[in-house]
Amino acid sequence: MPIQHLSIVGTGLIGGSIALAVKQYISNCQISAYDSDPSAIEAALRLKAIDRSVPLAQIGAGADLTILCTPVGQFERVLREIAPTLSAGTILTDVGSTKRSITKLAAELLPPGVEFIASHPMAGSEKRGMDAAHADLFQRAVCMIMPKPTTPEVAAGLVEAFWTKLGMHVRRLLPEQHDQIVARISHLPQVMAMALTAIQSEETLAYAGKGFKDTTRIAGSSAPLWLDILKDNREEVLSALSLLREELDGFERHLIAGDEPALLQWLSTAAEKRRNVGLQT
Amino acid sequence: MPIQHLSIVGTGLIGGSIALAVKQYISNCQISAYDSDPSAIEAALRLKAIDRSVPLAQIGAGADLTILCTPVGQFERVLREIAPTLSAGTILTDVGSTKRSITKLAAELLPPGVEFIASHPMAGSEKRGMDAAHADLFQRAVCMIMPKPTTPEVAAGLVEAFWTKLGMHVRRLLPEQHDQIVARISHLPQVMAMALTAIQSEETLAYAGKGFKDTTRIAGSSAPLWLDILKDNREEVLSALSLLREELDGFERHLIAGDEPALLQWLSTAAEKRRNVGLQT
Repeated sequence: MPIQHLSIVGTGLIGGSIALAVKQYISNCQISAYDSDPSAIEAALRLKAIDRSVPLAQIGAGADLTILCTPVGQFERVLREIAPTLSAGTILTDVGSTKRSITKLAAELLPPGVEFIASHPMAGSEKRGMDAAHADLFQRAVCMIMPKPTTPEVAAGLVEAFWTKLGMHVRRLLPEQHDQIVARISHLPQVMAMALTAIQSEETLAYAGKGFKDTTRIAGSSAPLWLDILKDNREEVLSALSLLREELDGFERHLIAGDEPALLQWLSTAAEKRRNVGLQT
Repeated sequence: MPIQHLSIVGTGLIGGSIALAVKQYISNCQISAYDSDPSAIEAALRLKAIDRSVPLAQIGAGADLTILCTPVGQFERVLREIAPTLSAGTILTDVGSTKRSITKLAAELLPPGVEFIASHPMAGSEKRGMDAAHADLFQRAVCMIMPKPTTPEVAAGLVEAFWTKLGMHVRRLLPEQHDQIVARISHLPQVMAMALTAIQSEETLAYAGKGFKDTTRIAGSSAPLWLDILKDNREEVLSALSLLREELDGFERHLIAGDEPALLQWLSTAAEKRRNVGLQT
């Protein structure tokens, strides 16, 4: 079942990149879109990323798949507004960085017969907006999707096929697993990149090399967007932060004691683990 | 005074890249080199990065400038071996990541008339060896040099001009300032990248996106090399780690309290600071 009509809520970096990718990699698919910022929609129309602009209340009409690409903090408001307009048989997904709360909201708010299948494409940028969007943002990246035990396979399969066509490696898992995993592999690195930046002074920043710049690149991301994510995934982020503190305690203990074999072991284990990242995909 | 004869101890990533950069950007400069690993010297000769291989005991003979490019932990042994062979008028520099100890060693071991001016080109890679070396490694990066109050300006000027020709922005400072600055802008990010990697499991690593990969890229660096650096700069690294803990404590407090204005302030300050990095150079 090919997707012939896609709807996108929010034509920022991710929504805009999805539109461009669909135009490049999926043939005969019409795209309707809504953004609360008229200039974002104008940019998407000008770049021929979308076919038409529609009001939020009509976003799901006739769409095989509707994708929520707004910041996590706006999900509840948007869901409440569009839920009554969605008809049975429609599939809804999202691209947010946290899953427990949206899954709960969707179960509460959506009418029967509307399938919500959460998605999290692990692709992005510290940049924002349609102007930073590009069709290959998703190539070779991982996308997590979270069908429920009751989700019909035809719906889960449609969402899986959609991300696969955009170049992604799709993996299925539970919302709770998702939130725990991303707290460690994504949310904590974000907090660390910001903390590492925060302790710098004008003097130290004058000596920033490629190492520092890469390590903290994501710190330049949108603060309001991250506020939403970190609040929503608070417990898991705090627990990932505890793990990191234990790791740092160990390192500090070895360094204070001048315990060379233990220090070397600590450094080697991490270096070896990092060198193996991505080798399996 | 152009450099006509350069000597390099250690043709790994940095020494090899210096040789390639000199061949590309400085005309009529002969390069002699030594490496304890015969295959590293063979690779440098094969790539025409150096003109001749010489024994360590002859490394300074006839050189306008000799550069130590061995790991920090080997400086003492190498300095003891070459010190007696250096003649007055020779200039010696290095590329190490810590400066207090080598500056002290050089003052103790070098014969009168041999000028030691510590250098730290802020360029590198998680990769190692001559095969990863390239002529443009130093372009647009910062190089710190540390002439003493007693260093003749002609010698400091020669070292400054040398790195400038390789494409670097040279800044002069004191060894103590250097060690404090790099603990924060380079050594702590290294430890953090390794700690962030260490807390991952096979399950979480399966979802590593570009953000995680960039944030931890440097974690794949050589563990023995970093053991030397962190041991040598222990006090400053511990103090930078304390700063980071305070920063994380603040973040954690705000998140536990659900204090949105404080959290947003914390996130925005870091994001804004990161976006301004590199804009001034």
